Amino acid sequence: MTKPNYALGLDYGTNSVRALIVDVKNGREVGTAIHAYETGEAGIVLDPSDPNLARQNPADYVKGIEVSVKQALAQARRHDKKFDPANIIGIGIDTTGSTPLPVDREGVPLAMKKDFRNNPNAMAWLWKDHTGHAEAAEITALAAKEHPEYLAKCGGTYSSEWFFSKILHCLRSDPQVFQAAWSWVECCDYVPAVLTGTTKPEQIKRSRCAAGHKAMFNEAWGGLPSREFLAKLSPKLGALRARLYDKTYPSDVPAGKLTAFWARKLGLKAGIPVAVGAFDAHLGAVGSGVDKGKFVKIIGTSTCDVCVWPSNENLPDVPGLCGIVDGSVLPGYLGLEAGQSAVGDIFNWFVNEIQPGGPVKGSHEALTRKAAKLKPGQSGLLALDWNNGNRTILVDQRLTGLLLGQTLHTRPEEIYRALIEATAFGALTIIKRFEEYGVRIEEVINCGGIAEKNPLVMQIYADVTGKEMKIARSAQTCALGSAMAGAVVAGKEGGGHAGFAEAQQAMSGVRKKTYKPVPADHKVYGELYKLYRQLHDAFGTKEWAGSLYNVMKDLLNLRDRQLRGE
Amino acid sequence: MTKPNYALGLDYGTNSVRALIVDVKNGREVGTAIHAYETGEAGIVLDPSDPNLARQNPADYVKGIEVSVKQALAQARRHDKKFDPANIIGIGIDTTGSTPLPVDREGVPLAMKKDFRNNPNAMAWLWKDHTGHAEAAEITALAAKEHPEYLAKCGGTYSSEWFFSKILHCLRSDPQVFQAAWSWVECCDYVPAVLTGTTKPEQIKRSRCAAGHKAMFNEAWGGLPSREFLAKLSPKLGALRARLYDKTYPSDVPAGKLTAFWARKLGLKAGIPVAVGAFDAHLGAVGSGVDKGKFVKIIGTSTCDVCVWPSNENLPDVPGLCGIVDGSVLPGYLGLEAGQSAVGDIFNWFVNEIQPGGPVKGSHEALTRKAAKLKPGQSGLLALDWNNGNRTILVDQRLTGLLLGQTLHTRPEEIYRALIEATAFGALTIIKRFEEYGVRIEEVINCGGIAEKNPLVMQIYADVTGKEMKIARSAQTCALGSAMAGAVVAGKEGGGHAGFAEAQQAMSGVRKKTYKPVPADHKVYGELYKLYRQLHDAFGTKEWAGSLYNVMKDLLNLRDRQLRGE
Repeated sequence: MTKPNYALGLDYGTNSVRALIVDVKNGREVGTAIHAYETGEAGIVLDPSDPNLARQNPADYVKGIEVSVKQALAQARRHDKKFDPANIIGIGIDTTGSTPLPVDREGVPLAMKKDFRNNPNAMAWLWKDHTGHAEAAEITALAAKEHPEYLAKCGGTYSSEWFFSKILHCLRSDPQVFQAAWSWVECCDYVPAVLTGTTKPEQIKRSRCAAGHKAMFNEAWGGLPSREFLAKLSPKLGALRARLYDKTYPSDVPAGKLTAFWARKLGLKAGIPVAVGAFDAHLGAVGSGVDKGKFVKIIGTSTCDVCVWPSNENLPDVPGLCGIVDGSVLPGYLGLEAGQSAVGDIFNWFVNEIQPGGPVKGSHEALTRKAAKLKPGQSGLLALDWNNGNRTILVDQRLTGLLLGQTLHTRPEEIYRALIEATAFGALTIIKRFEEYGVRIEEVINCGGIAEKNPLVMQIYADVTGKEMKIARSAQTCALGSAMAGAVVAGKEGGGHAGFAEAQQAMSGVRKKTYKPVPADHKVYGELYKLYRQLHDAFGTKEWAGSLYNVMKDLLNLRDRQLRGE
Repeated sequence: MTKPNYALGLDYGTNSVRALIVDVKNGREVGTAIHAYETGEAGIVLDPSDPNLARQNPADYVKGIEVSVKQALAQARRHDKKFDPANIIGIGIDTTGSTPLPVDREGVPLAMKKDFRNNPNAMAWLWKDHTGHAEAAEITALAAKEHPEYLAKCGGTYSSEWFFSKILHCLRSDPQVFQAAWSWVECCDYVPAVLTGTTKPEQIKRSRCAAGHKAMFNEAWGGLPSREFLAKLSPKLGALRARLYDKTYPSDVPAGKLTAFWARKLGLKAGIPVAVGAFDAHLGAVGSGVDKGKFVKIIGTSTCDVCVWPSNENLPDVPGLCGIVDGSVLPGYLGLEAGQSAVGDIFNWFVNEIQPGGPVKGSHEALTRKAAKLKPGQSGLLALDWNNGNRTILVDQRLTGLLLGQTLHTRPEEIYRALIEATAFGALTIIKRFEEYGVRIEEVINCGGIAEKNPLVMQIYADVTGKEMKIARSAQTCALGSAMAGAVVAGKEGGGHAGFAEAQQAMSGVRKKTYKPVPADHKVYGELYKLYRQLHDAFGTKEWAGSLYNVMKDLLNLRDRQLRGE
């Protein structure tokens, strides 16, 4: 019997980082640990006067490596006396995104420098930071006019959650930080650079996935948007382009080798390969077994939908998608990404902020139990799932939640169920958009905490979409996907795998338990979806007479004015 | 010094009855007591499978007389040793409405008879019972076609809350009860009939106010709608007309004299006059000092708006009002009624059902305290106040609540404030409608528990409407108005007053503390009201392309189907 080989996956989520050690032969997870970021509220730096702001301290990312990996190794040792860290053959990393951070000439995050300590603008701009919404609109408008091709692959609208919206907003709102930043680095590029000692901006192997989905990078037009284009937004942004990057890489390419410093610190073998980073959802899709016809939903605080399409087969641009990027998920395939800006976050908001009745009355469990007894449509309620804007298909952060149909008899569990249903209708809207443009969806594989732990949510998703819902075998598919990347960069000769297809075959799968649509409920949801779509189009689009498109925007503008005291 | 004379007012609310003893010379309130109805939930019989149903046990009304009056007398005696019940010179009564109950040939409520005990259809159909919504639509449609004049004085739509909708629904849904009912009597006619021993249907002096506002009674067309009209809805309803009534009376007319039986039971003088009953809001308006130019808002679980207009001055029909009835509030004046189907009920629903955090976190007081710190528009929220339908100006019970603008940061106090603002926008919509049709509003006088106890609500009402909000002096203006009616039917010669004008002069007034609009906030609310009105018209009217008029109705229809298990 040969000694088992392991790969290490690091998964940087919104509130914490997880380390996972996996047997590359069969996907067995032998050790895992989570470290919660220490700065801010649940790891997020907020601004009470600006609900759009969400930042993170990059020092939390670095500390998280050590704490989570050491604990995961300890757990592996506890469970298997023969476990040997020297058998870890490669490392992969996924993170949230677009989460760019400004760095100096040496690649040191500005937030780690004395001059900028405690300045949120010098920190990492977390994916859900929406301070750049005006800049996003500006970028969209300019691209629509001068380079429609830039938008065609990212759904037709450049989002406030993305790379250039954030950087341009920093340039406008905190020129000192912008000026001090030699370059800007995605979190998923920063962590591999730290581990491989390649933090100088020009050394960093940038992620194809981050660049393609969030920074309009495409080899067809020579990489990032042109200097001229960026300069029209601001001459300084144009000048920054040369200090960004021209090349990008998928995660089957090594970013470098683990430095002696980090090997010693973590107790791993120096020189093992570290894969180029990618976004959590993309490696999560890999860890869930994404493939042609297999649609992966990563359901957490928000939802990411990922599928792939052979690069050599024709696919039209799909309006409203977050992105279509060659090689962003699997080499040789277009990676297609869509998503919902808030899913679990909406349920958490209702349970923790609005209905905090404690474990007996107002917990997720109690509400789920009662909500499960309701029939579709029985409450008379209908909600829109836009409490954090709409990522797909409207690509509009300046949208807000809506609850309709409440009477004096409406109960909390009815609202809870209506919120679940709203996210299911949002999910269906995305699936329909894919299918309308010819992307066949033969299998839906769900992963993430909610997919695993809330059968009611999965059943409602099945009933609403009319599709069977499967659940990925691993409870931590993002970290598993990262570990797979680690196994792939180790290569066959290094004890790993020849490519992602082989790694998926060996290391991923789905569970026995699936959720099948109940025909009668699917029918009722068909009626409700028509009404959802009516509200969706009324508040989310401006195409027709009598549109209510202005309402949410006017309210947000008034809110912002009042908060600023104007 | 002459001995003081007192009048007794009985005020039948939604959950309890109040007795109030008032000095007729100066309005001093010397004794009061409340008795909560004992049947059902807070005095209301509900049906878990039909949220539209709300009934009351008429036995609770009768028991309520004795308990509340005796306690009020005891309180008066405790506070004033010289108080003598023999100095009570007259009694007035107000009740909710339309709250009709089926009675037999002798005037005995069917609910008190063995055959029908525990049958909710044999009980009083409480004002907020909406089981007759289909019948209301049917009556409206028929009247619009054949007798538009019937609708012209009640806002253009016959409501499911009203007399014939309820009776017709009983006829259709429980023919046995309908068949056994010799006649139907409003609660405000039933209680005076009990006290004066005139319960035989043909003896009862029916209230002008109930008949005119809820049963399309108008002397211009010979009283109630014609037999032919009613027979088209159902021949049996046509036949019922002869067993209803041809004459109606305002509350300055005695319904009869207190019987010896009730005088003994209560410890009052036999033979004192009992005024014809009226609805709570109408006598509440009288107790608040309603007069030409004085607009009274009775703000409780729901809101009633009452004003008057000289009968001999021209006034066009005002679409959407609940009614314009000569003499329904004050003799010699048209009584104009409007209202909001839920106000305090919406706040209670949110506090008790959705946000029950106990006295520290989720009480009215705690939420009010936090909500008061918010600026208008700061939350980004906007709500519609339709959790119990819309009484004025849409006259549509098949509408529901809406909350819009919520984000992941939305806090309970923001929702609470948005709900208050929604009711204020609803109030403004009513005021605007009055003014558009030439009814000048020089003074707004508020009464009811919320007006007295919640300065935030009153300030928001002032800021939203741009009008100063005054508060009636009495904390129980409905019971006070009833007592005034008692003083008026006693007459000058009986130690009371020659008419309501004299009684108001002597017995009512407003408080020193008023609420003046803050100009800056009024301006912001002007912006918000535009958006409220946009939603109001989108969901509440069907006039324009892209109307969302169907949405709430489709949801309610689906809800009802699912509840019935179809």
